[in-house]
Amino acid sequence: MIKVAVVGYGNIGKYAVQAILAASDLELAGVVRRQVRDDQRLSELAGIAVVSKISDLEQVDVALLCVPTRSVPAMASAMAAAGINTVDSYDIHGDSLVEYRRQLSEQTKQHGTVGVIAAGWDPGTDSVVRALMEIMAPRGLSFTNFGPGMSMGHTVVVKALQGVEDALSMTIPVGSGVHRRLVYVKLKPQADFAAIKQAIQADPYFQNDETHVFQVGSIEAIQDVGHGVLLERTGTSGRTANQRFKWEMRINNPALTAQVMVAAARASLKQEPGAYTLLEIPLLDYFPGQTDELIQHLV
Amino acid sequence: MIKVAVVGYGNIGKYAVQAILAASDLELAGVVRRQVRDDQRLSELAGIAVVSKISDLEQVDVALLCVPTRSVPAMASAMAAAGINTVDSYDIHGDSLVEYRRQLSEQTKQHGTVGVIAAGWDPGTDSVVRALMEIMAPRGLSFTNFGPGMSMGHTVVVKALQGVEDALSMTIPVGSGVHRRLVYVKLKPQADFAAIKQAIQADPYFQNDETHVFQVGSIEAIQDVGHGVLLERTGTSGRTANQRFKWEMRINNPALTAQVMVAAARASLKQEPGAYTLLEIPLLDYFPGQTDELIQHLV
Repeated sequence: MIKVAVVGYGNIGKYAVQAILAASDLELAGVVRRQVRDDQRLSELAGIAVVSKISDLEQVDVALLCVPTRSVPAMASAMAAAGINTVDSYDIHGDSLVEYRRQLSEQTKQHGTVGVIAAGWDPGTDSVVRALMEIMAPRGLSFTNFGPGMSMGHTVVVKALQGVEDALSMTIPVGSGVHRRLVYVKLKPQADFAAIKQAIQADPYFQNDETHVFQVGSIEAIQDVGHGVLLERTGTSGRTANQRFKWEMRINNPALTAQVMVAAARASLKQEPGAYTLLEIPLLDYFPGQTDELIQHLV
Repeated sequence: MIKVAVVGYGNIGKYAVQAILAASDLELAGVVRRQVRDDQRLSELAGIAVVSKISDLEQVDVALLCVPTRSVPAMASAMAAAGINTVDSYDIHGDSLVEYRRQLSEQTKQHGTVGVIAAGWDPGTDSVVRALMEIMAPRGLSFTNFGPGMSMGHTVVVKALQGVEDALSMTIPVGSGVHRRLVYVKLKPQADFAAIKQAIQADPYFQNDETHVFQVGSIEAIQDVGHGVLLERTGTSGRTANQRFKWEMRINNPALTAQVMVAAARASLKQEPGAYTLLEIPLLDYFPGQTDELIQHLV
């Protein structure tokens, strides 16, 4: 049995616990969270080791870092130094990801551990689909259309504005990679809706998208973790144009992210020391079981 | 430059030549085909080395085996013995594939070569999608819906019947993995259409599917290499049900198969000796170029 710890017990951490318990080859080593008083302990964690430092758990093969992206690199580095494999869903694309991979690659090789990074759905499984589409048709255009679903990043920006008590930013796909933003705000008493609306529309996170702002009495009443994506590519294989590909999914966002991280935990134990994105690991490594049976079933 | 030879010059071989010529990191070493007289040489192969034995080509790093599936295992084995990597689109699923992989695995390891097998679209890239869907939602049902498009296997069965001059078997998706067969036959003079229709519907290839048979004056007039697939999965991530995934493509069949084989040729040079399905190779290995740039672009 592979012993997996969940670090952080927010949305993704909760679903990660469920996914570990549902896997026959994995064992939940425990949950690492900020110190909580005994009377704040959650009944769903009864019988599960809950600690504030991972070193308080007996044996951990892999730690799932279910913490905000900004905390991930330092935490992954500390885990590597402690000889523990890590999996995260680091979600900033581009330079930042390349730099994080480079640093963690050095640290993991030094300590003989493995880090699987950006192991969510975008970046993550969507990246796998984008790569597959380009393998099949090397020339052409791909479009990633997100939603409808809640954007964590945009929601955080709105929540930070003065006068906003709670907020929700929805991403609506308009097509060909263009998105509309629907922002719902619950205001504090005496807050000026017109000024807040203007501030949102002028923010760099929103200024390039068509953004609509609505005032609501309750954010809780409209919140839902359903999300989705539509990936499209029209391209050329060899000299043959008009090759058309489409990937669509409608999913519970944190449940999917957690499930991908759990599969990556398993895969981490089959790699040489280093840091890996999902594109650098053979898909068969994410599965439990025998190679021949998997090939018979999946290929 | 990676030197790639095309073995067999049927439908897939023709498109493979185009895909190699379109790739900046590959060089066409030549085409291997049955002996042809000088006056039968195709103008499209002008300036390309066309030989009847691969040993007549100067240097070959990888051979694309664009020959019928039944000829693939023996040919792959001979290439391994000659120190040449191979890529094929072996298209029989299940036991047969597992056994072929096992045998070629031994031979390639003995000779220090690599064989990438079943590197078409199904088995092949569809297998990658099926695996990805199961990683994301380990419990649930997947359906593979083929077509509308021509089935090579079913067409060959009909062509072999007495009284049939030419034939075309189309696969039509009915939904949830069920298919309808539309069979078009051009008969020889004096052939009995009713008897042939009955023979087709009683054949093991057709007897479990709803099969319609039509008599036509020309097969050429209705033939088209357009094909497609719809892969669907509804499953559970952790304990969360109703996760929905869909992959759809509409493609030129031999052009796509050839392009996947060409990408696999590149990947073959990055693997340790052995035989591999697409599920056993990291997706990044199919691309030319630098890892950091690919991660920046695709992840």
